[in-house]
Amino acid sequence: MENGTVKHWRFQGNKKLTGASGFTVRGVLNLLRGNLNENDPRPTIPLGHGDPSAFPCFRTATVVEDAIVDSVRSANYNHYAPTVGILPARRAVAEYLNRDLPYKLSPDDVYLTLGCIQAIEVILTTLARPGANILLPRPGFPYYESLAAHIHLEVRHFDLLPEQGWEADLDSVEALADENTAAMLVINPGNPCGSVYTRQHLQKIAETATKLGIMVIADEVYGHLAFGSTPYVPMGVFGSIVPVVTLGSISKRWVVPGWRLGWLVTSDPNGILQKTGVGHSLSLSLLLNMWFDDYIVDSIKCFLDISTDPVTFIQGALPQILEKTKEDFYSKIIDILREAADICYDKMKEIPCITCPNKPEGGMFVMVKLNISLMEGINDDMDFAIQLAKEESVIVLPGIAVGMKNWLRVTFAIDPSTLKEGLERIKAFYQRHAKKQISS
Amino acid sequence: MENGTVKHWRFQGNKKLTGASGFTVRGVLNLLRGNLNENDPRPTIPLGHGDPSAFPCFRTATVVEDAIVDSVRSANYNHYAPTVGILPARRAVAEYLNRDLPYKLSPDDVYLTLGCIQAIEVILTTLARPGANILLPRPGFPYYESLAAHIHLEVRHFDLLPEQGWEADLDSVEALADENTAAMLVINPGNPCGSVYTRQHLQKIAETATKLGIMVIADEVYGHLAFGSTPYVPMGVFGSIVPVVTLGSISKRWVVPGWRLGWLVTSDPNGILQKTGVGHSLSLSLLLNMWFDDYIVDSIKCFLDISTDPVTFIQGALPQILEKTKEDFYSKIIDILREAADICYDKMKEIPCITCPNKPEGGMFVMVKLNISLMEGINDDMDFAIQLAKEESVIVLPGIAVGMKNWLRVTFAIDPSTLKEGLERIKAFYQRHAKKQISS
Repeated sequence: MENGTVKHWRFQGNKKLTGASGFTVRGVLNLLRGNLNENDPRPTIPLGHGDPSAFPCFRTATVVEDAIVDSVRSANYNHYAPTVGILPARRAVAEYLNRDLPYKLSPDDVYLTLGCIQAIEVILTTLARPGANILLPRPGFPYYESLAAHIHLEVRHFDLLPEQGWEADLDSVEALADENTAAMLVINPGNPCGSVYTRQHLQKIAETATKLGIMVIADEVYGHLAFGSTPYVPMGVFGSIVPVVTLGSISKRWVVPGWRLGWLVTSDPNGILQKTGVGHSLSLSLLLNMWFDDYIVDSIKCFLDISTDPVTFIQGALPQILEKTKEDFYSKIIDILREAADICYDKMKEIPCITCPNKPEGGMFVMVKLNISLMEGINDDMDFAIQLAKEESVIVLPGIAVGMKNWLRVTFAIDPSTLKEGLERIKAFYQRHAKKQISS
Repeated sequence: MENGTVKHWRFQGNKKLTGASGFTVRGVLNLLRGNLNENDPRPTIPLGHGDPSAFPCFRTATVVEDAIVDSVRSANYNHYAPTVGILPARRAVAEYLNRDLPYKLSPDDVYLTLGCIQAIEVILTTLARPGANILLPRPGFPYYESLAAHIHLEVRHFDLLPEQGWEADLDSVEALADENTAAMLVINPGNPCGSVYTRQHLQKIAETATKLGIMVIADEVYGHLAFGSTPYVPMGVFGSIVPVVTLGSISKRWVVPGWRLGWLVTSDPNGILQKTGVGHSLSLSLLLNMWFDDYIVDSIKCFLDISTDPVTFIQGALPQILEKTKEDFYSKIIDILREAADICYDKMKEIPCITCPNKPEGGMFVMVKLNISLMEGINDDMDFAIQLAKEESVIVLPGIAVGMKNWLRVTFAIDPSTLKEGLERIKAFYQRHAKKQISS
């Protein structure tokens, strides 16, 4: 370096990464946390994200912790894992999913991933050939949009209909799809809506997709977390109608999101032939096999080859986790979620600026509508969330982050008494900001 | 679907992913494993990859397993981790690295990653603005090349010089760099060469980089695994001369590659000012802070926002792992590696078609030259590796996979008696394929 000159460094950050991806849940939550009032003696109430693991009532099962301890102590799983995951863990996932399917998945249909997030990354990157587009629900999970922007995969949004229990607007799916559409996404149980789709609606989705010649990506990270009147049905049940790529993980049902173990599962689309008895079955079968093996599955493997893997000893623990977790752990979690959803739905009714179109039946979230016009000095959902964080130390996600301005995404998946306290604070916040009534 | 027609599905795989990325170590090793003879009763000897964790003599320390068990049993680390990693773990990495640095890193300089692989992904993606290039060593670690191809970052190769202990050819570094060069990579201890750079050579690298205005990426995943006469010096020691981004992990020193915990560390380049006493120190300081904060660090954070994180409970275990591992564990591993490297170097001398230009002094690999002309029916290094797998159930990596045709990358990091057996088999393989001498 020469003295007295300002050195010119040649490297710079990739500006594409900065800001271009729009909202991320993380980014917005970090912003809100930055607005918390450090002098508020009350604990912060986190209604922004779906991670109740810190609350003792949501602690994972002892058998699940045991599985990890056994796996680490065996010293058999310190090695690098194979690209697609270790066989016993792939087999365990196939068997776990087979409990609810009319056909049998094999371990070869299963790819282990770093939580559901990497499963999303794998399938979107696999589909992101130049010009391709994907149909995503609105409201949805914004990681899909952020990632699609990053890998230049065009996104088209179809609406979920609050007046129809947040079902997908399949007419708009048909209108949006064209010859470059690769897939449509279904998140069931719903994030952010708390909906659980009926078997009939899932079948209609499958029929629509097959008519359009697109696959269905079924994000079932909240799989089995259904506590209302509609039973949970996995999309893979309709794998004989349309190819389904199922994404899942142990993050939610076992309440261990920090463990980063998920899966991507390809269904066998050949079932379609046996059921419909199409004349050209051989060539169709051949064709389907060809694209799945040559394109999708090959692309998945190539992408995993340059990605990193889920921790081997957690893979080693997976068979025990999936096989040994007792029904009473599952039902305990479901019971707490049901109680919390009830509290949430009932307490919301006491807050005039909030309307909850559907009582949540599954997952960890509910979407509620804000009536901004009832308040003074609050401009929109983002403003509401920021001021709420400041004044009440309550974090909620503004709807804009999931595609719906002037709504809120609220999680009820926290300790019920803390949830009550949080909703009381929101009510107090509303009362403080409510427009004064003009007496008539 | 209409009866009797062949259905046209609209989705296809991303062909960019298939094959475009050239060699990956994984891909080549999978190919070689596919050539193993299932009828060979002898165990396969894995000299292809740097993962000795399956051998009992390389089992990690009990205190390291204890750290995981304590962390899981605490139930304090089941939650999602913050984007950059949890604070106690970041602090522990800073303190661990500070033991060898003339200045102090803070926890804010540390980003936790999914092994060193994700640390590579973060820094390369951060630097991959349009038109940018990066200088990589040849031979090297081919993941850099695969990833760079995937993210459209141009690669330029400088040679490592076998006749100079695999030092970097800094003249060619200077010749290759232009205004679009962002960084040069240094892997020390060396993969694939087993070299350990002297303090003098590292300082020359720093001086060359600062002259060119480029940063140094220091891949120190094999950090501290030095067992020859040259002591290991981290590149960060020269952070006051040139900005250094250090990549590391617990994979190698603690022999737990499957645990996927690594780090990316940015050094504080302001030290440069205090040392050289540049006149315009304020503005230079400002400038350096600006790019680091506004560009590099922001880009890193944005990328991590859309990436997944290392397992939280392994982060929770990290302080105990870094602080409590005893010196005798480290020295036991070093002693085995030294013994294995000696065996490897000595045994290789008995195999006429193999020349080892330098006795390895660190890491887990050695590069050896093949003299193909001494053999019959073997065309090149790839052919050598495939036939060796078939006939002798020994896996070695052909040099072409790391950028050097007709060389081999051989790991010595396995149980020493198994290593001896493997080298005996290579010798037998050579003898069977040696050209017949024409008696004069």
